[in-house]
Amino acid sequence: MAQKTDIEIARAADKLPIREIGARLGIGEADLLPYGHDKAKISQPFIDGLKGRPDGKLILVTAINPTPAGEGKTTTTVGLGDAINRIGRRAAVCIREASLGPNFGMKGGAAGGGYAQIVPMEEMNLHFTGDFHAITSAHNLLAAMIDNHVYWGNDLEIDTRRIVWRRVMDMNDRALRQITASLGGVMNGFPREAGFDITVASEVMAILCLATDLNDLQKRLGDMIVAYRRDKTPVFARDLGADGAMTVLLRDAMQPNLVQTLENNPAFVHGGPFANIAHGCNSVIATTTALKLADFVVTEAGFGADLGAEKFFDIKCRKAGLHPDAVVLVATIRALKMNGGTAKDALGTPDPEAVARGCANLGRHLSNLKGFGVPVVVAINHFAGDSEAEIAAVTDYVHEHGAEAVLCRHWAEGGKGAEALAEKVVALAESGASAFAPLYEDEMGLFDKIDTIARRIYHADQAIADAKIRDQLHAWEAQGYGHLPVCMAKTQYSFTTDPTLRGAPTGHDVPVREVRLSAGAGFVVAICGEIMTMPGLPSRPAAEKIRLSEAGHVEGLF
Amino acid sequence: MAQKTDIEIARAADKLPIREIGARLGIGEADLLPYGHDKAKISQPFIDGLKGRPDGKLILVTAINPTPAGEGKTTTTVGLGDAINRIGRRAAVCIREASLGPNFGMKGGAAGGGYAQIVPMEEMNLHFTGDFHAITSAHNLLAAMIDNHVYWGNDLEIDTRRIVWRRVMDMNDRALRQITASLGGVMNGFPREAGFDITVASEVMAILCLATDLNDLQKRLGDMIVAYRRDKTPVFARDLGADGAMTVLLRDAMQPNLVQTLENNPAFVHGGPFANIAHGCNSVIATTTALKLADFVVTEAGFGADLGAEKFFDIKCRKAGLHPDAVVLVATIRALKMNGGTAKDALGTPDPEAVARGCANLGRHLSNLKGFGVPVVVAINHFAGDSEAEIAAVTDYVHEHGAEAVLCRHWAEGGKGAEALAEKVVALAESGASAFAPLYEDEMGLFDKIDTIARRIYHADQAIADAKIRDQLHAWEAQGYGHLPVCMAKTQYSFTTDPTLRGAPTGHDVPVREVRLSAGAGFVVAICGEIMTMPGLPSRPAAEKIRLSEAGHVEGLF
Repeated sequence: MAQKTDIEIARAADKLPIREIGARLGIGEADLLPYGHDKAKISQPFIDGLKGRPDGKLILVTAINPTPAGEGKTTTTVGLGDAINRIGRRAAVCIREASLGPNFGMKGGAAGGGYAQIVPMEEMNLHFTGDFHAITSAHNLLAAMIDNHVYWGNDLEIDTRRIVWRRVMDMNDRALRQITASLGGVMNGFPREAGFDITVASEVMAILCLATDLNDLQKRLGDMIVAYRRDKTPVFARDLGADGAMTVLLRDAMQPNLVQTLENNPAFVHGGPFANIAHGCNSVIATTTALKLADFVVTEAGFGADLGAEKFFDIKCRKAGLHPDAVVLVATIRALKMNGGTAKDALGTPDPEAVARGCANLGRHLSNLKGFGVPVVVAINHFAGDSEAEIAAVTDYVHEHGAEAVLCRHWAEGGKGAEALAEKVVALAESGASAFAPLYEDEMGLFDKIDTIARRIYHADQAIADAKIRDQLHAWEAQGYGHLPVCMAKTQYSFTTDPTLRGAPTGHDVPVREVRLSAGAGFVVAICGEIMTMPGLPSRPAAEKIRLSEAGHVEGLF
Repeated sequence: MAQKTDIEIARAADKLPIREIGARLGIGEADLLPYGHDKAKISQPFIDGLKGRPDGKLILVTAINPTPAGEGKTTTTVGLGDAINRIGRRAAVCIREASLGPNFGMKGGAAGGGYAQIVPMEEMNLHFTGDFHAITSAHNLLAAMIDNHVYWGNDLEIDTRRIVWRRVMDMNDRALRQITASLGGVMNGFPREAGFDITVASEVMAILCLATDLNDLQKRLGDMIVAYRRDKTPVFARDLGADGAMTVLLRDAMQPNLVQTLENNPAFVHGGPFANIAHGCNSVIATTTALKLADFVVTEAGFGADLGAEKFFDIKCRKAGLHPDAVVLVATIRALKMNGGTAKDALGTPDPEAVARGCANLGRHLSNLKGFGVPVVVAINHFAGDSEAEIAAVTDYVHEHGAEAVLCRHWAEGGKGAEALAEKVVALAESGASAFAPLYEDEMGLFDKIDTIARRIYHADQAIADAKIRDQLHAWEAQGYGHLPVCMAKTQYSFTTDPTLRGAPTGHDVPVREVRLSAGAGFVVAICGEIMTMPGLPSRPAAEKIRLSEAGHVEGLF
C-alpha cells in the first residue's frame, strides 16, 4: 500500500467538533467563538477568568540548523503533544499560523506532517480565522493615515523622506518592494519613495504576538515609530491617533485560535511573526492561555536553536515572564549528514561518519541551550532510510555530551511513536531542574547584547559594526530604549552569517549591517546579512497548479 | 427619554443564536458554518439541495436620487422584511456587505437604522466573515502573477504599458492611486506605472456577486482581461493560470452570510460590488438561496433608481434569470424638499410646495420603473419633523400618477411601523401583475444600449461619445462581447451627469468619457463623469476617534 500524503491523512482525519475540544478544556459554548465547526477563538472574558490558576509546564521544541533535508520541528511538536496525552497527561500544542502569500509560490507548509499534524490543514494554509488579514488592515490603515496627515497640512512636520512605516500585503509580490507613491497630481498627495513588506514582517504582527491583552496591544501600537522629523525626533503611531482604530481592527485577531491534532488533542495556532526580523514564535496570549488549561504545553520557535530558541528565551520568555521547564532539540539523521558535509542527492546512502561529523552542530546547540539553564533532550525524528549505525552515532554523541537522545516515529505512527520522548520530557519538566535565565540582563548596553549573542550563541570572535550603527544604538539608549532585548536577523542555515557554513564553524565575526528599532514590539533588530522582507514568486508559482477538485478539495496547495 | 442611537439600539438587540435563525430556515447545523454565534455561512451542499424548490416573491427596494438629507433605503428594506414577517408571511432580507476602508474616513454606514437594523452591526462594519479580505487576496494574487510572469521572461508577450489589472486594498488610501512599481533594480522587476483601487471596485467583487456557483466563478475569473499585447490582443487571467488559485481563495467567500434583523428575522448579507463602476447589488447566490427559503425576499440596489434599479434589472435580473414581483420606491419628505430646491439647513421648516416640486424626481423614477413592467409602491420613510401637509402633497402626487404611497414608521417602530407597506407589497407581489422585461435586448449594439438608457431612464436627448470610444465598442462587438449589458457609471445625485441638477431635468446629453470591458463579470462599463475608484481620507479621519471602550465596545465607528 502506498504511503499516504500529508493532505490525504489530514482529509481522512476523524475530527471532533471544535466545541468538544473546547469543552474538554472547560471552555463553555458562549466563550468558544466558532469559525466553522473545526476552528474557534477563545473569548477574552474566559481568558480573564483564568487568572490565579496554576500554570502547566512549558516545553520548547527547537532544532539544529535547518537544511534542505528537513528536521520536522513542527511534526515533533505535534507528535510530542499527542504522546504526552497518550501517556495520560493533559498536553496542548502551541504553534504559529501560516502566511498565505508564500503558499502560492512554493508548495505550502502544512502544520506538521505524516500522522503528527494539526487540522484543518487547508484552512490553516489559507485565510484561517482572518488574523493576518486583520493585521494587514491595521498596518495599512496606519500607512494611509500617515500620508493623509501629510496631505492635509503635515501638522506633525513629518519629514517624508524619513517615513519608516511601509505598507504590507500577505502576498509574494516583488513588484511592490520599492515604489514611488502619491503620483498623479495634487489630489493624490506628495510623491515619495515607499514600499511593501509581507504581512508577517509587520511590527503589528510582532506586537500582537507579544501583547498580553488588548490594553497592552493598544499601548504598544501607539509606541510604534512611524517617521522622523527633520530634527530626527520620532513621530509615533499615537501622534496620528491611529492606535485606537488599529486596536479595534485587531480585537478578534488578538483572541487565540483553537484547533486540534489528528489525535483530537487541543492545538493553539496563533500569530506568526517573521522569524527573520522578529522573534518568530506563536503569541504570548495563546501560550499563557494554554498554560492555564493544560498540564504540559509544547511549543516551538522558528528556525534553528541559535535564532529561534535564543529569541524565544531572550524576547518572548523574558517579556512574558515565562519559565520554560524543558527543551527538545530535534535532529534528523539526514540533516546531520548534511551538516557533516553530505550533498543532498547522497542522503540516501548510510554514512555514520558524516553523521558523527554533523553532530558538531547538534552539540553546539546542546551546550548553548544548557546555558539558558533549561534541561534538554534530543529527539531523533526518524526517517525510513536511517540506519542503525547512524542512529547509534547520534545517541552515543549525545550521551557523551551529557544528555539523552530518543528515537521518535511520530511521523509514521502518530503520538504512539513519541511515547518514549514524552516520558523523558515529562520527567525532565517535572524534575524541577530548570533554572531558566536569559542570556543577558536588561541593563547591558545594546551593542554588548548583540556581541554577547554573537560570542556565546554563534561562537563568533565578536560582533562588528560601523561607528554609524554604534552611534545609532547609543542614541536609542539615550532615548530610553537601552533596556530592550535585541532581535537578531541573520541566516538560519549557519551559526555564522554565511549560509553555506554548516556544522560548528569558528573564527568568524558577525557584522551588523543595520539596526532597526521596533519600539512597539519592544526590541532592537540587528540585521546581519541580506534579509528579504517581501519575497517573490518562482518562475512556475504553485498558484498555477492550485485549484478546487470536483469534490471541492483544494488541490496543489500541499 | 433621549432617543437611542443606532449603535445603542443594535447593542441592546435580543439576538437569537444564528443556529436558531438557520434552523427556522431548515438549515441543519452541519450546513450552517458559524462565525461566532451571530454570523454564519450557508454550505454549498445545502444550497445545491435546494434546486427544484419553488421560488418566493422578489421585492426590490429602490429610491429617488440620493441627497444629503437621507432616504433610508436599507432601513426600509429591513423594516419591510420585518413587517412582512409580522403579518404572518415568511420574509428574508438581502443586502450588500459594507466596505471596511471607508468606515475609517467618514462615520461608518450601519446596516439600516433606528429599529430597522441588521445585527451584529460592529462586525458587519469591520471584518465580518472575511469575504472582502478574500477578494483582496485573490485580486492581488493575480496582480503578483502578472508581474512575476513578466519578470521570468514574459512568454505571453504582455505589453507592460497595457497591463489593465491594478491592485486593490480595502482602505481609503489616495497615495496608492498612482504609483511606479518594480523599482530598485534587477531583482524587483521591470519598473512600470501601476496603482490601487479600493477592493469593492475589483472585477473579482462583481464576479463573486454575479456567479451562480464555484464553477461559474472560476470560468468568469479566467475570462477576465488583465493586459494587452503590442498587437492589442487580450491576455486573460486564464492565460496566467491564476483562475484555479483565485477560486480556492474565494471558496468560502462565495457562500452567503446569514445574520438577523433586530426582530430576529433572517438577513442575507453578501457581496458588495461598487455601485459606481459595477452593478451595486448583493450576490446572486444569496438572492437565489433566499428565494428558495422564504416566501418573500426583500432586497435593494445601490444609489437611486436611475442607477441602482436599472442595473439590478438589466444586469443582475437579466443574467441570473430573476423575475422581480414588485418594487418599493423610497422617498423622504426631506429628500423631496431638497429635490424641490430647499437648502439643507432649511429642511426643518415645513414647505409643502417644495415637496410638491421635488415630486418631479419621484414621478420620473415611478414612470421609469413601470417601464420595466414591475408594479411599484412608494414608501414615505417618516422623519419626526414631517408635516401632514407635506405628506399629503406626496400621497396626492403619487395617487395622481397611478400608484400608491404608504407612510412608514419602521425607523421609530420597527416592523410594526411598516405593516401597511407590507400588506400593500404582498398584495402587489401576489397579484401576478409583474411582467418584468429588461430595458433592451442582448442583441442591441453596445452604444445603442448606452443611448437607450440615457434617453429612456435619464431622459436625456442622447448619449454622446468620441469616435475613439465608438470604435472601441465596435471592436468589442467584433470580438464577441456585443451581447453584454452595459453598466453605467455616473453621478448618483442627478438624472444628468451634473451632480447639482436635482429634480427632473431635461435637455441634457450624456457624454461617455471612457468605456471599460469587464469580460469576466460580463458587462461593459460606460463612464460618464468623474469616477473615483480609490477614495481618500478626510482631514480628520473617523479613525482618530475609533477605539475600544472599557467594556470592549467599538466607539466612534458609527
